[in-house]
Amino acid sequence: MYSEDEIRVEQLGECRYESPLTPLLDYRQYSINYVEESDRILVDNTVSSLSDELQSGRALTGLEPAGARRKIFFDPATTRAGIVTCGGLCPGLNNVIRSLVNEFTRRYQIQSVFGFCNGYQGLVSASERPPVELTPDSVKDIHEHGGTILGSSRGQQNPSEIVDRLLEMEINILMVIGGDGTIRGAMAIAEEVSKRQLEISVIGVPKTIDNDIMFTDQSFGFQTAIAEGTSAVRAAHVEACGAPQGVGLVKLMGRHSGFIACYASLAVNDANFVLIPEVPFELDGEHGLLACLKQRLRQSGNAVIVVAEGAGQHLMQRVNQTDASGNQRLGDVGVWLKSEIERHFAENDWCLNLKYIDPSYVIRSVPANPYDSVYCSRLAHNAVHAAMSGRTKMVVSRWHTRFVHVPMSLAIRERNCVDPNGDLWMTVLESTGQPPRFG
Amino acid sequence: MYSEDEIRVEQLGECRYESPLTPLLDYRQYSINYVEESDRILVDNTVSSLSDELQSGRALTGLEPAGARRKIFFDPATTRAGIVTCGGLCPGLNNVIRSLVNEFTRRYQIQSVFGFCNGYQGLVSASERPPVELTPDSVKDIHEHGGTILGSSRGQQNPSEIVDRLLEMEINILMVIGGDGTIRGAMAIAEEVSKRQLEISVIGVPKTIDNDIMFTDQSFGFQTAIAEGTSAVRAAHVEACGAPQGVGLVKLMGRHSGFIACYASLAVNDANFVLIPEVPFELDGEHGLLACLKQRLRQSGNAVIVVAEGAGQHLMQRVNQTDASGNQRLGDVGVWLKSEIERHFAENDWCLNLKYIDPSYVIRSVPANPYDSVYCSRLAHNAVHAAMSGRTKMVVSRWHTRFVHVPMSLAIRERNCVDPNGDLWMTVLESTGQPPRFG
Amino acid sequence: MYSEDEIRVEQLGECRYESPLTPLLDYRQYSINYVEESDRILVDNTVSSLSDELQSGRALTGLEPAGARRKIFFDPATTRAGIVTCGGLCPGLNNVIRSLVNEFTRRYQIQSVFGFCNGYQGLVSASERPPVELTPDSVKDIHEHGGTILGSSRGQQNPSEIVDRLLEMEINILMVIGGDGTIRGAMAIAEEVSKRQLEISVIGVPKTIDNDIMFTDQSFGFQTAIAEGTSAVRAAHVEACGAPQGVGLVKLMGRHSGFIACYASLAVNDANFVLIPEVPFELDGEHGLLACLKQRLRQSGNAVIVVAEGAGQHLMQRVNQTDASGNQRLGDVGVWLKSEIERHFAENDWCLNLKYIDPSYVIRSVPANPYDSVYCSRLAHNAVHAAMSGRTKMVVSRWHTRFVHVPMSLAIRERNCVDPNGDLWMTVLESTGQPPRFG
Amino acid sequence: MYSEDEIRVEQLGECRYESPLTPLLDYRQYSINYVEESDRILVDNTVSSLSDELQSGRALTGLEPAGARRKIFFDPATTRAGIVTCGGLCPGLNNVIRSLVNEFTRRYQIQSVFGFCNGYQGLVSASERPPVELTPDSVKDIHEHGGTILGSSRGQQNPSEIVDRLLEMEINILMVIGGDGTIRGAMAIAEEVSKRQLEISVIGVPKTIDNDIMFTDQSFGFQTAIAEGTSAVRAAHVEACGAPQGVGLVKLMGRHSGFIACYASLAVNDANFVLIPEVPFELDGEHGLLACLKQRLRQSGNAVIVVAEGAGQHLMQRVNQTDASGNQRLGDVGVWLKSEIERHFAENDWCLNLKYIDPSYVIRSVPANPYDSVYCSRLAHNAVHAAMSGRTKMVVSRWHTRFVHVPMSLAIRERNCVDPNGDLWMTVLESTGQPPRFG
Repeated sequence: MYSEDEIRVEQLGECRYESPLTPLLDYRQYSINYVEESDRILVDNTVSSLSDELQSGRALTGLEPAGARRKIFFDPATTRAGIVTCGGLCPGLNNVIRSLVNEFTRRYQIQSVFGFCNGYQGLVSASERPPVELTPDSVKDIHEHGGTILGSSRGQQNPSEIVDRLLEMEINILMVIGGDGTIRGAMAIAEEVSKRQLEISVIGVPKTIDNDIMFTDQSFGFQTAIAEGTSAVRAAHVEACGAPQGVGLVKLMGRHSGFIACYASLAVNDANFVLIPEVPFELDGEHGLLACLKQRLRQSGNAVIVVAEGAGQHLMQRVNQTDASGNQRLGDVGVWLKSEIERHFAENDWCLNLKYIDPSYVIRSVPANPYDSVYCSRLAHNAVHAAMSGRTKMVVSRWHTRFVHVPMSLAIRERNCVDPNGDLWMTVLESTGQPPRFG
Repeated sequence: MYSEDEIRVEQLGECRYESPLTPLLDYRQYSINYVEESDRILVDNTVSSLSDELQSGRALTGLEPAGARRKIFFDPATTRAGIVTCGGLCPGLNNVIRSLVNEFTRRYQIQSVFGFCNGYQGLVSASERPPVELTPDSVKDIHEHGGTILGSSRGQQNPSEIVDRLLEMEINILMVIGGDGTIRGAMAIAEEVSKRQLEISVIGVPKTIDNDIMFTDQSFGFQTAIAEGTSAVRAAHVEACGAPQGVGLVKLMGRHSGFIACYASLAVNDANFVLIPEVPFELDGEHGLLACLKQRLRQSGNAVIVVAEGAGQHLMQRVNQTDASGNQRLGDVGVWLKSEIERHFAENDWCLNLKYIDPSYVIRSVPANPYDSVYCSRLAHNAVHAAMSGRTKMVVSRWHTRFVHVPMSLAIRERNCVDPNGDLWMTVLESTGQPPRFG
Repeated sequence: MYSEDEIRVEQLGECRYESPLTPLLDYRQYSINYVEESDRILVDNTVSSLSDELQSGRALTGLEPAGARRKIFFDPATTRAGIVTCGGLCPGLNNVIRSLVNEFTRRYQIQSVFGFCNGYQGLVSASERPPVELTPDSVKDIHEHGGTILGSSRGQQNPSEIVDRLLEMEINILMVIGGDGTIRGAMAIAEEVSKRQLEISVIGVPKTIDNDIMFTDQSFGFQTAIAEGTSAVRAAHVEACGAPQGVGLVKLMGRHSGFIACYASLAVNDANFVLIPEVPFELDGEHGLLACLKQRLRQSGNAVIVVAEGAGQHLMQRVNQTDASGNQRLGDVGVWLKSEIERHFAENDWCLNLKYIDPSYVIRSVPANPYDSVYCSRLAHNAVHAAMSGRTKMVVSRWHTRFVHVPMSLAIRERNCVDPNGDLWMTVLESTGQPPRFG
Repeated sequence: MYSEDEIRVEQLGECRYESPLTPLLDYRQYSINYVEESDRILVDNTVSSLSDELQSGRALTGLEPAGARRKIFFDPATTRAGIVTCGGLCPGLNNVIRSLVNEFTRRYQIQSVFGFCNGYQGLVSASERPPVELTPDSVKDIHEHGGTILGSSRGQQNPSEIVDRLLEMEINILMVIGGDGTIRGAMAIAEEVSKRQLEISVIGVPKTIDNDIMFTDQSFGFQTAIAEGTSAVRAAHVEACGAPQGVGLVKLMGRHSGFIACYASLAVNDANFVLIPEVPFELDGEHGLLACLKQRLRQSGNAVIVVAEGAGQHLMQRVNQTDASGNQRLGDVGVWLKSEIERHFAENDWCLNLKYIDPSYVIRSVPANPYDSVYCSRLAHNAVHAAMSGRTKMVVSRWHTRFVHVPMSLAIRERNCVDPNGDLWMTVLESTGQPPRFG
């Protein structure tokens, strides 16, 4: 599928230092789990895809496994690391920060770890908030709280200015936690580093509450997010049943990918209609959403609609704007759908009780649940291992349950989406009883 | 304070039947907790108020205590009860329904309990959904779910038509769970019953998520509601801290009374500004909200505002509408405040990150927490005791930790509000550091 | 009921200082909620009890209301306060600590607040952990965590040694958070202070997860505790239903008072047998627990038993020991009951699936829920007001929904217990269907 | 690695029926996600392992993918299905039952689905509780509750008797939800079916709260379980910090595999010592647990120990017993460790405050969290697809994020364990700071 070139991770140089060990870990020559560097994790794990690859005569390719290396590139004694969180909030940010700090200082005995504040804004000289020094003690309890102690922001900054700043602060490793826009920014920084022939590693920890980044089984915070989304769907169901001709309408996150909408709907099975960006829908027509909604109300007296924020954009008047991260501003499909449904039913003298629920920031701001908490720690540890070994311009990820290194260019090439012909969407169709297409 | 007349509860007639006992309770002549009927609970429990009353020469008055009576008015063998839930959802509705059913059937061995669906709509002949028979088995698990299994609706129906329906179904006891509009409706039914000289008891269980009904220490569901409201304030705080110049704005319920806003803000102490209907505020002026907000942002870089839905109505253009319950439609203070703040800061070239959170239906639809669950049971049991003893046109309530009977006319005479000179609001001022008045 | 002497709160001396105000609160001469000092809150609020009192010719007595005083005893400029937490953990301890610190420093502008560590052990010179200075910043987030940041311990220390320590550290106000043993210790300290004619205020904030302290509507943390207890009862029910002849046995806290067992059982209504210290039970006999359990299993195939830790002590062999607080060590009724039931059924060749659940420390260690959180703040604020006004040897409390001052001697005279003839226990009997007495 | 024979799934016969479609799904010839039957999922997905396999000249093998088949074996019109849950409770059992019922009746339009009660006991004629008919309506809300509505039991029954029962009830498909003992029992049933040349499919849904079944990324309910386990570890930490020389000791599930102990400890990072069955430990010795515990207490004054129930069995006196499922009865390592530690410290006059927490049944009995809820649905749907296609003697599973079929013999051959040289355990060592081996 992917060529060696596409899949190869850049490295700053030869690993000349021994990985340090704490006295306890060294005790009795305990066999530390150093990763087998020469191994690779297959991108596709079916026999058929592999046979194709073999028949084509190409060498088998795979993703580099993440993990601790026996030899490392950076000298712990002189290494200084920086951490920055960018873009919208997502459960688990503080867990990642905390585990990065702990791994840098405890495992690799690095003395100086800094947090840059308010996203890339904190990496330029004009920053409102100065960088803060991070220690195991200062991050001790932060994982119990949502959000990010460093603050965040959307948007890019001048890569050259950022590299100046890193040099000024003698930072060798920059950890960037953010989504595809942020990773694009990190690539630009890494390229500037490379242009100037510097030895600064830029490593990404992919953050997307929508679970829309490729080569990652599930993005951190996603499971926490679906639990909160589930509460909203449950509330919509209760409200729909609590009034004659009750309709509960929930807008959940998902700009390009409807994973949260699908999972939150499946978790309680109370949704009757799930609308996601991957599957266009029509309001009108014999099997349009409005017709199906009327049928449901006639039969059951209530209905629950779950809509992902990126769904139905083709139906709304274009909002030709982008936000600071360069993301196109979406029309508010929830508010629009509410008014379209209410208008349509009012025109038909049909008395409706529509309750609209939009929980977005509540979902983004909760602390990571225990599973995500552990996942964040492991991602962070692997990010530190990667950085210490001199890898750069890559993100850490988990693919088919194995932690791997993915070049930034590959990670942002496509989006991870709900496959309209796949089994997740099929399960949604079976559970809601909705038609495969509205229209 | 209150005269005998204002405080006296109506009774349909003499209690001629023995209160039935289950065999186990009767075992060994166990002394059942029958209430001392002649006693009264003081409305005001301070020495000073009492001294005033005594000096005025009036007899001491108090509220009738709730509880089981040794003699009852209705013959369990022939009594049929009905239950209806009206108005907006509130945590605990299903608990009340369940405990009413259990107490009627288990304690008083009543054979027929009916649920009327979708509020008062279910009590007229044209009802969309017919009444359902309720049994201990059919309500076994309903308290684990939010909302009301009976459905609800806003608005009144013709009292005469309702009484016809009760007669037709041979209902002797009507349990009405609802807010002040609903209780007003119940009074009209009770008066129609009285006019026709019928023996039908109409008892109310006061429901108000806003905690704004008088003579009740705390309305059922209120504690559950503030827990949910607290989550929203916590989310606003996390979002405010997660971005440069971050402002978290939360709208919470409270049409006339700001209890939820006060409690949710105090519970986490993350709010900087709390706006409630009882304390008018101004946007402009030296100590106006906008000036204070700017000062806070200058000092701390973030701010959290909690606004009750009924606050600031004088500042918005009047929406001259009422809903089906006759409540005046309020302008949406949350959306209005969001746009006023954003406009003002934009005009001052101040780049703001305002995140708006409106969790309302989620708060209404959660199941009762354990404390509210127990409280609902006890309210319901006392409502059944009152009904069986032939009381009518009254609500059950808890006043100064004692369960009491309150005449409907007294219960809806005034609203329970946050006292701007009281210690709850003082605690809010101390905890937020906001000025006593904005303007 | 109570004489003036019993109810009167001691005061160190005349209040000569103006209560300080923050600039914002002072703004526009806002009318601060100063308490009406001459008023009193009636201990008993029924007309009948009052009439008795009036007829006896005695003056009406009542508890002193808590709240801010216009004039205070201590000069904020020179006052130093100390806080200590004693006895077992209880949800809300950190909330109380935090609100004490905030109120001392923000409202009264006191510069020095110290926390003594590990209970009374931290108040003697040989203390393992030295006192820590507490500031609004250092206690900012502690309410989000269970337990107490100060640590706690059981047991008394020499009052004379403690007063030496207070003098040495120039402490004027000692805030003691603890149960009846702790309050007894605080009385001894206050008496030593008084003997030496010192001006040190000793104020208690009553802490009892069992809700067994008199003159308090509900102790802080109790509602949080019953929520956790409810989870255990729900688990027992699920386990009982998950196996043939399944019995779920839950031990909940309650050394002398069965409130937690009653509330947790009522909250889910899944318990079939509730055993509390106030109502002795027998295993054997026609209506003994074992006979009733067999009947239940025959009928339904499963059963849930909730037992408070202090129940059934007369049935077990005496454990003649006391713990460091002087509390008698109880036999473990849960383990004993488990083995008695299993033995009995095994002897009768009755195959039982008994699952035993003992959640105790989990209940003690959770953070306060939002309601308790607000309640703790208000208690703490009132404790600070009381201390600043020179009150001593008293506890703050809420009685009939009003915050009051209660002399320590009165607070510990009796225990608050579940009344076997009261309506709470009646509701338990109705909901479980168990006989009023087993035996 | 595995030969074709080991990995091949048995099939009852040729698939001759068209898979039925609901009218809505059929609408517009929507392309249903039928699985590509000829494909296989690689067991090992590293390039190195694959290269070994290729060099050995063997054909590539892999697990059969789960999913809907275009052609099915059983005629929906005449098919009758049975469901049984066995062994200990686990979050998600009701979700699996519910989704099996929904998929059988809605997707495949099967008329008769039965639940057998109390595990294999319900499959023999002497069963205490008769089978119950299950419909989408009767299972509508069961996923909101923990446990299993069918009840469960441990232990086997005579396979021949069970097959007689299936024949008698004309059951064609038996769905068995249980752990390795249960799957062993299911194999015996399948073999009896095969011996009699019957056409009954026996499909397993592997259930193990310990996550110890092979070829499954994570067992259902596991994530819910670790969240509950995390609460216990957090409680232990709070208690340990709440007293001088405080030790919190938590016993978590894990007979052979320490996954829950590892994950729960990592989720909060409050544990100082994690003891699992895979890594033997010693109490005594220079680096023994007791020595390390003393060192920790000297440094920090508190410690948290998490022990999996199967750990340290070699240190306790053997309990030579097995339970009804044939599992060896373990000594209670929690109680044993508590007494050993207390004894040792008492002997050294070291005053310890040890708090012991054993939450086991609470963990087992909670409802599935949203993620597990979705996962259970998808497992159940795939189990139904497998059964309808005539597969038998296999379990459904998810391997490397793909749903697959695994022969029962393979599924129970080994246990899934924490690899003492793997990265999960390494993360535990890094996070606790404990030595790799105690002793």
